[in-house]
Amino acid sequence: MKSIEEYIELINKKLDEYIPENIFPEDIFKAMKYTVTLPGKRLRPIMCLEACKIFGGDYEMALPTACAIEMLHAQTLIHDDLPCMDNDDFRRGRPTNHKVFGEANAVLAGDALLSFAPQIILKYSKDLGPEILIKIMEEYTRYAGAYGVIAGQVADIEAEKNWKNNIFGLKPEELLSFIHTHKTADLFKLSLRSGAIIAGADEEELNKITELGEKLGIAFQISDDILDETSTFEEMGKTLGKDKNSDKLTYVTLYGIDEAKNKLSCILAECCVMISGFERKSAVLIEIIEGIKKRVGI
Amino acid sequence: MKSIEEYIELINKKLDEYIPENIFPEDIFKAMKYTVTLPGKRLRPIMCLEACKIFGGDYEMALPTACAIEMLHAQTLIHDDLPCMDNDDFRRGRPTNHKVFGEANAVLAGDALLSFAPQIILKYSKDLGPEILIKIMEEYTRYAGAYGVIAGQVADIEAEKNWKNNIFGLKPEELLSFIHTHKTADLFKLSLRSGAIIAGADEEELNKITELGEKLGIAFQISDDILDETSTFEEMGKTLGKDKNSDKLTYVTLYGIDEAKNKLSCILAECCVMISGFERKSAVLIEIIEGIKKRVGI
Repeated sequence: MKSIEEYIELINKKLDEYIPENIFPEDIFKAMKYTVTLPGKRLRPIMCLEACKIFGGDYEMALPTACAIEMLHAQTLIHDDLPCMDNDDFRRGRPTNHKVFGEANAVLAGDALLSFAPQIILKYSKDLGPEILIKIMEEYTRYAGAYGVIAGQVADIEAEKNWKNNIFGLKPEELLSFIHTHKTADLFKLSLRSGAIIAGADEEELNKITELGEKLGIAFQISDDILDETSTFEEMGKTLGKDKNSDKLTYVTLYGIDEAKNKLSCILAECCVMISGFERKSAVLIEIIEGIKKRVGI
Repeated sequence: MKSIEEYIELINKKLDEYIPENIFPEDIFKAMKYTVTLPGKRLRPIMCLEACKIFGGDYEMALPTACAIEMLHAQTLIHDDLPCMDNDDFRRGRPTNHKVFGEANAVLAGDALLSFAPQIILKYSKDLGPEILIKIMEEYTRYAGAYGVIAGQVADIEAEKNWKNNIFGLKPEELLSFIHTHKTADLFKLSLRSGAIIAGADEEELNKITELGEKLGIAFQISDDILDETSTFEEMGKTLGKDKNSDKLTYVTLYGIDEAKNKLSCILAECCVMISGFERKSAVLIEIIEGIKKRVGI
């Protein structure tokens, strides 16, 4: 059994290995590697590996997929940070990708990761066999695309402009729920579902793990919304208070800090119950939940 | 046997069918569909269908893949046209994607297409079986990514700045060859190879069709470079003369118009010989070559 720290070390080693250096033209691989290897919690790949274990699989079989999902996550960060999107200068305490490599290369590095990530799965997971690989490709393309994380990003951008006016015909709370589900929870679901599929989980098990991904994703986003108000640049490594200053639609601007913390406690408790209900326990997932609680002091 | 016009009609119908409307949030699907369905020559999907026929396959089996490659091509156009890249306002006679939908949505529409295109292959080509599908995914992710079209785009951007100074340690003619191979010929190779793989072509056949894709791609790019100097906005639907004005590295700035036309004739003649060498002839590919000749008046 691996600890979170051991997982992070392993994932970092593999991320470094998978992305080559000194391949012409070097700029693009450097730009890809820069954001992918920024220090991070590696929540998504860890969830993928743990989901594989929960359903009786060998986590090593899920390593390429886990790392690919972290690459996909990095892609969303690179494009989210662009001047035409959130226009952020810092990410995880370092200058954002376009600040280092220029805007054009940052756009292309993100594009490249969107193909490179599934390429890594196809290249290093041949042992899974074509049927499982096709399933993983279906999951990846669904959650990475316009039905997944991008739906959340588009709604998020629209919401910045005029969420108080029921855009898309949605009430603010419905819109917020849509954004959280897609922008954040979809990559959590992709992580858990892929790990479970690699382990050979059945439909019922997949439904359960998807529900857990949805809850964990929402919880993580609420904790992020809380921290944007209460944390500092030094703690988070990125510019904070932007949500409040721009009157952005977040869990906190909509419900207030106290209600956000209550809701977060409640969802995390439900997650713990779900995790205990699986045949094989996951101390690591419980530890992740404790980490989220600690992060916001609940 | 289908004519080019019949192919174009069929491809346009399928492109329209594959990209849904009225799916929330609508902006992203509208933005994707806008550029994908701009009137175009549909060279890449036609090549895919014809390659399938050349090696004895049924072109209908290759339709989803052919359309997916056109979507990937549209993705490269959307991101290429962005202000931080080529900063173009017109494409195929219409305002570019970011001019209509805004920069953020154009970035996201491109991102979405990169996952949507393989999703279409996976969804509508199940009959090909998982082994062939995996091969197609390998081809797609390779040619779409940092080893393929993006390598060409990165080198192209670098070349704009200072190609006369042997950047990357390459002489201008070597750099130009690298850019043409990846930025243009790689999608031609992907189109022909995918069609051939769907038809069950063997390694030797794949090598031949790859060589044809390389030649056709280079020829097409030379013709584009010539037209940038000699054509008008009305004929091309985009702002021209930018290459010359910015002293960009192109076949024409490097070798001059006459030498470019000579080279083009020569490569196209080689292509005709290759096409005649396949067991099944392709009148459509020959017609495409005649079209390129006509385009530049040779």
